[in-house]
Amino acid sequence: MTHAHTATAPGLDDKTALLSGRDLWSTEAAEASGIPSLVLSDGPHGVRRQRADSDHMGVHQSEPATCFPPAVALASSWDPGLLRRLGEALGREARHLDVDVLLGPGVNIKRSPLCGRNFEYFSEDPLLSGVLGAAYVRGVQSQGVGTSVKHFAANNQETDRMRVSSDVDERTLREIYFPAFERIVTEARPATVMCSYNRVNGVHAAENRRLLTQVLREEWGFDGLVVSDWGAVSDRVAALLAGTDLEMPGNGGGTDAEVAAAVRAGELDENVVDTAVARLRTLAERVRSEGAPDGVDHEAHHRLAREIAADCLVLLKNEERALPLGPTSRIALIGEFAQTLRYQGGGSSHVNATRVDSPLEQLRAALPDAPIDFAQGYDPTGQADAAHLREQAVARAAEADTAVLVIGLPEADESEGFDREHIELPRDQVELIQEVARAARRTVVVLLNGGVVSLEGWHDEVDAVVEAWLPGQAGGGAIADVLAGRVNPSGRLAETIPFRLQDTPSFLNFPGEQGHVRYGEGVMVGYRYYESADVPVRYPFGHGLSYTTFDQSDFRVTATGPDTATATVTVTNTGDRSGKHVVQVYVAAPERPVSSPARELRGFAKVSLAPGESTVVEIDLDRRAFAYWDITRADWTVAAGRYEVQLAENAHTVVASIPLDLAGDVLAKPLTLDSTVGEWFGHASVGPALTKAVESGLTEEQAAFAAENAFAIRMVESMPMRQFIAFLPNPLPEGLLEQLMQTSHTLA
Amino acid sequence: MTHAHTATAPGLDDKTALLSGRDLWSTEAAEASGIPSLVLSDGPHGVRRQRADSDHMGVHQSEPATCFPPAVALASSWDPGLLRRLGEALGREARHLDVDVLLGPGVNIKRSPLCGRNFEYFSEDPLLSGVLGAAYVRGVQSQGVGTSVKHFAANNQETDRMRVSSDVDERTLREIYFPAFERIVTEARPATVMCSYNRVNGVHAAENRRLLTQVLREEWGFDGLVVSDWGAVSDRVAALLAGTDLEMPGNGGGTDAEVAAAVRAGELDENVVDTAVARLRTLAERVRSEGAPDGVDHEAHHRLAREIAADCLVLLKNEERALPLGPTSRIALIGEFAQTLRYQGGGSSHVNATRVDSPLEQLRAALPDAPIDFAQGYDPTGQADAAHLREQAVARAAEADTAVLVIGLPEADESEGFDREHIELPRDQVELIQEVARAARRTVVVLLNGGVVSLEGWHDEVDAVVEAWLPGQAGGGAIADVLAGRVNPSGRLAETIPFRLQDTPSFLNFPGEQGHVRYGEGVMVGYRYYESADVPVRYPFGHGLSYTTFDQSDFRVTATGPDTATATVTVTNTGDRSGKHVVQVYVAAPERPVSSPARELRGFAKVSLAPGESTVVEIDLDRRAFAYWDITRADWTVAAGRYEVQLAENAHTVVASIPLDLAGDVLAKPLTLDSTVGEWFGHASVGPALTKAVESGLTEEQAAFAAENAFAIRMVESMPMRQFIAFLPNPLPEGLLEQLMQTSHTLA
Repeated sequence: MTHAHTATAPGLDDKTALLSGRDLWSTEAAEASGIPSLVLSDGPHGVRRQRADSDHMGVHQSEPATCFPPAVALASSWDPGLLRRLGEALGREARHLDVDVLLGPGVNIKRSPLCGRNFEYFSEDPLLSGVLGAAYVRGVQSQGVGTSVKHFAANNQETDRMRVSSDVDERTLREIYFPAFERIVTEARPATVMCSYNRVNGVHAAENRRLLTQVLREEWGFDGLVVSDWGAVSDRVAALLAGTDLEMPGNGGGTDAEVAAAVRAGELDENVVDTAVARLRTLAERVRSEGAPDGVDHEAHHRLAREIAADCLVLLKNEERALPLGPTSRIALIGEFAQTLRYQGGGSSHVNATRVDSPLEQLRAALPDAPIDFAQGYDPTGQADAAHLREQAVARAAEADTAVLVIGLPEADESEGFDREHIELPRDQVELIQEVARAARRTVVVLLNGGVVSLEGWHDEVDAVVEAWLPGQAGGGAIADVLAGRVNPSGRLAETIPFRLQDTPSFLNFPGEQGHVRYGEGVMVGYRYYESADVPVRYPFGHGLSYTTFDQSDFRVTATGPDTATATVTVTNTGDRSGKHVVQVYVAAPERPVSSPARELRGFAKVSLAPGESTVVEIDLDRRAFAYWDITRADWTVAAGRYEVQLAENAHTVVASIPLDLAGDVLAKPLTLDSTVGEWFGHASVGPALTKAVESGLTEEQAAFAAENAFAIRMVESMPMRQFIAFLPNPLPEGLLEQLMQTSHTLA
Repeated sequence: MTHAHTATAPGLDDKTALLSGRDLWSTEAAEASGIPSLVLSDGPHGVRRQRADSDHMGVHQSEPATCFPPAVALASSWDPGLLRRLGEALGREARHLDVDVLLGPGVNIKRSPLCGRNFEYFSEDPLLSGVLGAAYVRGVQSQGVGTSVKHFAANNQETDRMRVSSDVDERTLREIYFPAFERIVTEARPATVMCSYNRVNGVHAAENRRLLTQVLREEWGFDGLVVSDWGAVSDRVAALLAGTDLEMPGNGGGTDAEVAAAVRAGELDENVVDTAVARLRTLAERVRSEGAPDGVDHEAHHRLAREIAADCLVLLKNEERALPLGPTSRIALIGEFAQTLRYQGGGSSHVNATRVDSPLEQLRAALPDAPIDFAQGYDPTGQADAAHLREQAVARAAEADTAVLVIGLPEADESEGFDREHIELPRDQVELIQEVARAARRTVVVLLNGGVVSLEGWHDEVDAVVEAWLPGQAGGGAIADVLAGRVNPSGRLAETIPFRLQDTPSFLNFPGEQGHVRYGEGVMVGYRYYESADVPVRYPFGHGLSYTTFDQSDFRVTATGPDTATATVTVTNTGDRSGKHVVQVYVAAPERPVSSPARELRGFAKVSLAPGESTVVEIDLDRRAFAYWDITRADWTVAAGRYEVQLAENAHTVVASIPLDLAGDVLAKPLTLDSTVGEWFGHASVGPALTKAVESGLTEEQAAFAAENAFAIRMVESMPMRQFIAFLPNPLPEGLLEQLMQTSHTLA
């Protein structure tokens, strides 16, 4: 039977043909084997379905689809429930457009505000990125559409992205750059993972067996398919061996032939090909097994996009209740982006939106009794006379109760493919804000930007600031909802807003040079750095204001095991509006064998409360909330000591802190002759015995010297015992060290 | 004859016996072969000669010798002439005490102010370290005594120093951590180089063939002997193969036997043993070939120590001419260190001084007509009642014209063997300064410290600050000379004084963890960081005031070759006292393939001028002054562009800048399919041809799209041409790329 089966099995060339795409966006089919062609489409915040007669450069527009807010905005919601609903909607649209795998979410960490693709990524924090990404994956996949978690791994810049080696140490990978992928893989079982363009410690991600097989599959249990980023494969055989199952896009079969040749030459085991084919088959079975193409209600999705966007806006500043706007106040709405909204970023994620609402029309609709004058204020293309536009706008502002400036980065400033070189807003827009703020009674700034921008030069002159990020096609309505007070702003920063680019932890090492980027800041990314090095920032990670007020009381931490706990807190809406609040729980570690960030986000929850309403929020802290990656053990490790579990308004402002004593993992290592003098003398039981033995061998003169020169011992504390012996004035008793090493073994 | 020679040659065991020490401080002799036993002694700033009946722990004091100022002070002189004279004196003392090799200078870079051994090292700048170290070596060796340049390499901390791996990239090694060694080896031909304890990128320095043979000997032409730091060898055979000729200290022949066994087992070529023995013989011949033991005039050396120390003091602040002290002013001299001077650091460099002068007695001698009251002020041992001492001191200060506080770190706070954990002065001394400053009419602070200390909390309250470092045994007289105005202060900071430890560039990565320290700041060490990241500091590198004034005029830069130049400046003493001035020349690089520090010290000279006197200072800028280490070429490389040659008061304050245009090395590399789209389209001649070919292939619709989406090209600029081809809407003309690659070859 086995023989017969082999006879009818597909030939080698039939199988290798499946290992790369048929074209830009679809896979090869093997109809005889029951493997259909699958369609993969960008991108995280909307379906970019390009028909077969189209091309990657986008000369032919993709099919219309809802452009939801990109990840930069979504992350500010801090709301996995919202991401789940978004995912479901995206899944429906994908099914509708015959898309089998939606190429998202992008969960790379925002290492520098300069990364050109930050608008496609969630956060500088791996927990927030992972929790939101997992919810997204669950949502999309609930509709029988696969996802592709990307870009694995350490792909944190666009500069030289196809060649640069991210030189990053193991602890940093484990604690910062891996966890979002790890959480999504282990909790949400994504259909595919996309390997990144870059090299990781010298080896291309596509050819990185450690990444794609050892870590992803063997450690995390990933059972899906690994697809290359488009064009990421340079050595197909090496990539296949490493675990890159599917190469995209297609290349006319050239690399498939290389694979077949390698098998025939005996350089590659055919099993490797079979495994990749089997994964493609599993993927096809999986994504087509649930649901059926269904009509999409684009109107409903547009409303959803508005609801989502409104919950993503972050109210950064609001002095003297400048916001919400009064129903009859006279408003000067200023800025070209108020009529032609900036709502998504450039590159592969660019969606052909079904419609776009402008803040101008939406604000007029939201405040029908408020006279709203519009002025263009600036021209993002730089073609119009800036001075003239500014003059007009200032005149409007002077007559109004409130000037609302819609400000932002031109689309060409941020895109996939290149990084920014600074974090400044265009100079003409900054000057516009300054002059308007001087002329207006009250000034409100609404920001539209995919990457963080500096607020310096004008922040202190205005009354309110709303960070709207890139809010998607319904962003105009969401902005109107928040400005008019229809929605209570509840977004929180998913990334720090620094004072200066120079203050950012990767400043010295971004984007690297000569093919290498050194992750010199290690785990001290984002708020981990600012809080640990005591560097002031404009607004910390987690910051966000509200129109209503919340009280957090009765914060408690209860151990639930040797290294797990539950934190609870009662949240009460003490204001006069309904609204949402984000509970943030951080953990500060005790002294341990590695340098620890001042605190790390270890749990969060968003709750919605009516005025006067109260709820108890419970946040579980698992073992990982207290663990670090120990390179000597190659494992997650909990150090013994007193941890602080902190309830905080944001990464900087702790409102309550409760100590939690953990016994930790037993770390004592048996002493050897390579252990240092410090380790020997500091050993709980061996130390005293050794001290006694050394002291009893000293002459009176030597003892007196030793007593007077206690610090002389500190001087040699880092010397291994093997070398120290040669420096002792008198030999130790024969066999003493051997006996003490034995003792330390028994104890460990 | 050859046969006969072989027959009488020493046996293998006789030879291997020479490869490790006879005891702690001397080598084995092979009298029959004419190789005598040599004595090696610590340490850089004085001879620490321990007799054979002594031991390393220093229970028996070493022979009395002049304790000159340690390197931290010497470097502040910025005076290679002074270092040369110091070296000659040290050489005389070494000869007098039968010392053949003096274990210095220590030229490791001050990567962090916390390094416990910073007092033994010169500077955060490699040029300053190298120039001073070379002068020292020339001085010592002029007396027929060898030196040992140490600790090679990347040994910049004490924590875990015998195991920690300094993980540092090649460019940083070449530009920051190697150059002082390189300069000394190539210019001053030291008799020995001492390898360090630590690992460099995972390999122990003692076993690091790349360091000890490829770089040191093959690239730099070192022809002396490599000696291990004491106890640095853990695998003797590996160390010998790497280039560690001599292991110290001796260990009873155990490792010699291992070497012999390896030869007999055929694992080690006997030539390797012969080479090491030959180097030992050469060393012996060299150090004993010049001069003869001579009497040492310790009084003259004490005077020299005073003269040197006075030129090392740095006048940091001097408001309203608080200094020099008037000849009859009433002085309150406060601080225990004024009567028991803190003058050197702990560890292997500790010298048994021939005498020690106190600031108290010396200031009384220098100002015979000034009433000087002394108060202890604080007790460095912490045993006395701090409040009582402070109260006494404040009372004295209130009665005086000027309170002079002698403040410093207790000896136990800084030593070889461990690093500091902060840069603060003892709290009781800070409080003393604050209270005295409030009570006194004028307050002068004299600082005694081996590592940089924070001046915050009191700096702005006092009138003058003198940084005296650890000034050696004659430091009391030197301090008196400067305070009384006998000597015009001319020291300049050889390291930055930061505001906060958190501001230092290695803050995130010092002293590392779990066996590794990441040099995450790369070349951005010391002022290179502060100036590049625009981080404010208390006092910049190069800062130092004077009692007289100097004018610098007529600054000129003349090219002397394609990438060399000479800078000249006229310096005039415009004040009313004789004094010395340090001319500092920095170079700022144009944009180049690597990130460049804002400026780098590339030349300096110290000149002595009488009032009204003028001199022209000429500073040569060699090719290296404009070069960076290019890892893709593995060579020093001068980028084309406009350099700025800057005359500066210090690393922060540029007083004149002259542009210098250099053609640079031809860097254009031929294009390949792995070159990026950006490189192809940006190529001077190929780019236009390619653009034309691509555009001529576009349909009208495509062309219109391309014109409207110029930034879409930026999006793919980092994509290698090999991958880009698959994304083009139309295939390129057959053979076009091959032809263009050929063109680029011809041009490169």
